Amino acid sequence: MADKTEKTGAVATITSETGACQEEDLSYGVRTAETLLRLFPVGLCVAALAVMIKDSESNEYGSLTYSNITAFRFLVHANGILAGYSLLSAAFTAVPRTMTMSRAWTFFLLDQVLTYLILAAGAVATEVAFLTYKGDVAVTWSEACGTYGQFCKKATTSIIITFLVVICYVLLSLISSYRLFSKYDAPVGYRNKGIEIVDLGS
Amino acid sequence: MADKTEKTGAVATITSETGACQEEDLSYGVRTAETLLRLFPVGLCVAALAVMIKDSESNEYGSLTYSNITAFRFLVHANGILAGYSLLSAAFTAVPRTMTMSRAWTFFLLDQVLTYLILAAGAVATEVAFLTYKGDVAVTWSEACGTYGQFCKKATTSIIITFLVVICYVLLSLISSYRLFSKYDAPVGYRNKGIEIVDLGS
Repeated sequence: MADKTEKTGAVATITSETGACQEEDLSYGVRTAETLLRLFPVGLCVAALAVMIKDSESNEYGSLTYSNITAFRFLVHANGILAGYSLLSAAFTAVPRTMTMSRAWTFFLLDQVLTYLILAAGAVATEVAFLTYKGDVAVTWSEACGTYGQFCKKATTSIIITFLVVICYVLLSLISSYRLFSKYDAPVGYRNKGIEIVDLGS
Repeated sequence: MADKTEKTGAVATITSETGACQEEDLSYGVRTAETLLRLFPVGLCVAALAVMIKDSESNEYGSLTYSNITAFRFLVHANGILAGYSLLSAAFTAVPRTMTMSRAWTFFLLDQVLTYLILAAGAVATEVAFLTYKGDVAVTWSEACGTYGQFCKKATTSIIITFLVVICYVLLSLISSYRLFSKYDAPVGYRNKGIEIVDLGS
């Protein structure tokens, strides 16, 4: 009987060791994937930022640069902030380390805030680009793309790249919220898989 | 020996029953809190929508209504969608039922998408309201609030209410992501609380 227990114990140890090795490999894969997903927006943000910063057109009617339009300045700043954060967080993720609760919370909160920031910047710039294309007769805002065609094209390119960053960040904030909340127990009242009976008479 | 086991078993049963009662009470509290947090935006959305829809001003220079400005129309639509969704989801949450995996995923995805939608609508409307106040000399967009003061004030009120909805939805999407991901195990490589050793040589 004692022998059998020992044998079972030995088998359990071997299984757990194999499991540990597999976990290590998988951990390496997961970390690499996340690092790449954090590095990708660095390039995109720098591209969106560079295209927008160089966006300037002069002709016989006057000149227009990105810095004349608040929404485009906001887009440049947002892309700058996200490029910096993406690089730092990628560097942090690349090195294997323990994901403590406070680190998981920090990643979660920063990812969420920056997703909201880049989404807002993208939406605002899209609206202003729309106004430069179409204008608004009722408010006497004339369209500007008839005279500044190149300017509008470059601005649109920068906005499209920004929305690719938004997609990356939606995925990243999904990953970081999964990593944070999977550490917690399921909330009370949602734990059972069966039918939940609650006395409504009380 | 058998007697002791029986006694221990009885104590365990009583403890588990008390636990079940406490869980039921807590479940009721959690559900009530979530229902209220989902009902609150219904009122806010309807208020923001009503203020914006009634936003119209006529004077000797002409007339301006919310429907002349794309961003404000978008705000009205977004608030309408969120009012409807908030009401439906509150009704769904109010009745006690099992939170299955597919329901948790549905709530999570819808909450996320609608948070992004209302944030984008609020940001875009803020930018356009800013332009109506300040104008943009370089693009020859004149400010409009000098002639349409009342219009601008009402629009600003509607935007402020919309940002209260955004806050509610940020909280709701936090709750629904907690409820979804706490059902999952912690990801591989982040499960250990101790020091994680990964062989980088391999």
